[in-house]
Amino acid sequence: MRGNSPLPQGEGQGEGELNASAMHTFAPPRGMRDFYPEDFRARDALFSAWRETARLWGFEEYDAPVVETLDLLERKAGEEISEQIYAFQDKSGRGLALRPELTPSLARMIIARQGALSFPLKWSAIAQCFRYERMTRGRKREHYQWNLDIVGEESVLAEAEVLGAAIAALRRLGLSHEDFRVRVGSRAVLAGLFARSGIAPEHFTALCLALDKRGKISDDQVRELLRAEGVGEADAGRVFEMLALRSLEDVDGRLAGDSAVADLHTLFDHARDLGFGQYLDFDLTVIRGLGYYTGIVFEAFDTAGRFRAIFGGGRYDNLLSTLGGERMPCVGLGFGDVVVMELLAQLGKAPATARGLEYAVGYMDEPSRNLAMQVAARLRAGGESCDLALAAE
Amino acid sequence: MRGNSPLPQGEGQGEGELNASAMHTFAPPRGMRDFYPEDFRARDALFSAWRETARLWGFEEYDAPVVETLDLLERKAGEEISEQIYAFQDKSGRGLALRPELTPSLARMIIARQGALSFPLKWSAIAQCFRYERMTRGRKREHYQWNLDIVGEESVLAEAEVLGAAIAALRRLGLSHEDFRVRVGSRAVLAGLFARSGIAPEHFTALCLALDKRGKISDDQVRELLRAEGVGEADAGRVFEMLALRSLEDVDGRLAGDSAVADLHTLFDHARDLGFGQYLDFDLTVIRGLGYYTGIVFEAFDTAGRFRAIFGGGRYDNLLSTLGGERMPCVGLGFGDVVVMELLAQLGKAPATARGLEYAVGYMDEPSRNLAMQVAARLRAGGESCDLALAAE
Repeated sequence: MRGNSPLPQGEGQGEGELNASAMHTFAPPRGMRDFYPEDFRARDALFSAWRETARLWGFEEYDAPVVETLDLLERKAGEEISEQIYAFQDKSGRGLALRPELTPSLARMIIARQGALSFPLKWSAIAQCFRYERMTRGRKREHYQWNLDIVGEESVLAEAEVLGAAIAALRRLGLSHEDFRVRVGSRAVLAGLFARSGIAPEHFTALCLALDKRGKISDDQVRELLRAEGVGEADAGRVFEMLALRSLEDVDGRLAGDSAVADLHTLFDHARDLGFGQYLDFDLTVIRGLGYYTGIVFEAFDTAGRFRAIFGGGRYDNLLSTLGGERMPCVGLGFGDVVVMELLAQLGKAPATARGLEYAVGYMDEPSRNLAMQVAARLRAGGESCDLALAAE
Repeated sequence: MRGNSPLPQGEGQGEGELNASAMHTFAPPRGMRDFYPEDFRARDALFSAWRETARLWGFEEYDAPVVETLDLLERKAGEEISEQIYAFQDKSGRGLALRPELTPSLARMIIARQGALSFPLKWSAIAQCFRYERMTRGRKREHYQWNLDIVGEESVLAEAEVLGAAIAALRRLGLSHEDFRVRVGSRAVLAGLFARSGIAPEHFTALCLALDKRGKISDDQVRELLRAEGVGEADAGRVFEMLALRSLEDVDGRLAGDSAVADLHTLFDHARDLGFGQYLDFDLTVIRGLGYYTGIVFEAFDTAGRFRAIFGGGRYDNLLSTLGGERMPCVGLGFGDVVVMELLAQLGKAPATARGLEYAVGYMDEPSRNLAMQVAARLRAGGESCDLALAAE
């Protein structure tokens, strides 16, 4: 899950696995959401902010099937195929799955037309994604995720553009740099630091996946995972020392002239020039859970630290070649619907969900109905919304 | 499938079941669609026409999970659970399915809050629906369907409102009554005519399902189905005689004073008063394949008769009680995305799919990039869409 890992938690904390009782006969499938009109209006306010921002930033919207082949998801590098995927077979025995994230589908669509599309391209989507979890803590099993991707661009201006758009969407929703910040790190810088420390590069992806678990598991457990990867005690000590570097200047001292460090400097410069520098913080401990990231990575959090990541992403230059396409640099992010709505609610900035009806036309008796109908028809023809009473009032 | 039954056919006619070859490695799952940006813009033009019409008519938008419980789909009356449903189990062994239509989910949501919602309510949704078909003729396995429903209203003004909205959406897309017409029948009128002929009422639902197959199978095969239902040769002859009634006046003569006939008259009157009378044709042979319809039913077709139904629906007063809620009158329709797009294309009225970008800002060398970035930031802040070049040109 690109933007928010793990998936959102629902309100229904503590639901067990065994209460498929009469009470739940009219509930949606476990972990999934109904959107009654007032829920829909809140969701639509968020989707509109996403969509309008993507438009302003020049992203083109696309979509892919909510069902993907298991084959595609299995071809993705660096991670075992998750047990948390909703997988099933069609009647010909083909493996299918409800997509856990949109990026593999994006990569598939790009590769399918890699010879015909014009690059760099900037694509945007709002995709429902699914994850099967045992409902021990009432977690949700689906969420919507806004995806922004720039494909075919090496320059770090690509990172600046997706970050700028995601931050602008949050500002459009009423949040400022006092409410949230984006932590920016770099796997390429980490790789450089580790290499300088003599840690074998073939351990790098597994090492990132282990380090991404920090905070969820203890540092001792992380050390255990590193040991399992063949990273000795002394090397592990150096790994944690690197992660403790607090500023880009500290990194400069250790990796002078490194292009990945230069990219980070450039990104902070671009952010300042594009007007969102105050939202970015350097943080080398940002790693991201997905195996496919290769360069700059980032995660946005509320400043109070109450919620999981609002959005997250980074550079993934090898995914297309891993899946069988030509190598092509990519930058992208995922931005889920649940955390941001929780944050907005907590800050008293939840979108208004009043019904936006312009006219309601009623009538006292059947003879006046004909006039009411004509009024309604005229209003609607003029672009005014009108609810016509269906019976005399 | 409520609006278009059967599901849309794809362009890929003649695909066999066995070509999961390298050529298809980057294709979407069989029968499902990718939406590249130009495809997405066409789809968005249709969705916008649907959504704006729903807004003008005072419908509130809602949504339900794309995954439903098999239990809900099995509770639906009058039809066996289709073999064409994408069904699977979650890891707790619960039966789930990709929804084949939205109406059961709507009914579930209404029943869950039947004591709290205000009726009548007018709800609208755009829902992706799925159907598993063996791909002998390249049929699609998913489509999007616009749903309009009015719940809690006995009056035939409910039918007039959903029909008026669907017709207005087609007019908004550039079509007129020369391009399409809506055939309006009534299962309640048919039931009255059959009862007057002495045909046992318990056969009625099965009879409707058999008669709905006319055109797909020969009248002799329909007679065979009727015989299997216990409808004798003489009664079958009378059934076909009823279906040959060409005008509402012919029906008047046989069912004088019948309230279902009066409802049809009222609907045609309302349509005239609301300004869409010229779109409606009386046609008693319109039956609809779904078991749950109880009263007026309708289907829209292109006047040239080249395509399947554009939209279809009717009154279903018993579905909520069948599923375990309180009885409540309902009227609804489903309007799929595929047939209308084929019709628009055939008439040269396909929506424009040009990219709506307002500005593109480039720069000749790295030093000018900073100014270009500031220009882009200013344009976007002012609500103008802008694609910023990611490298010097």
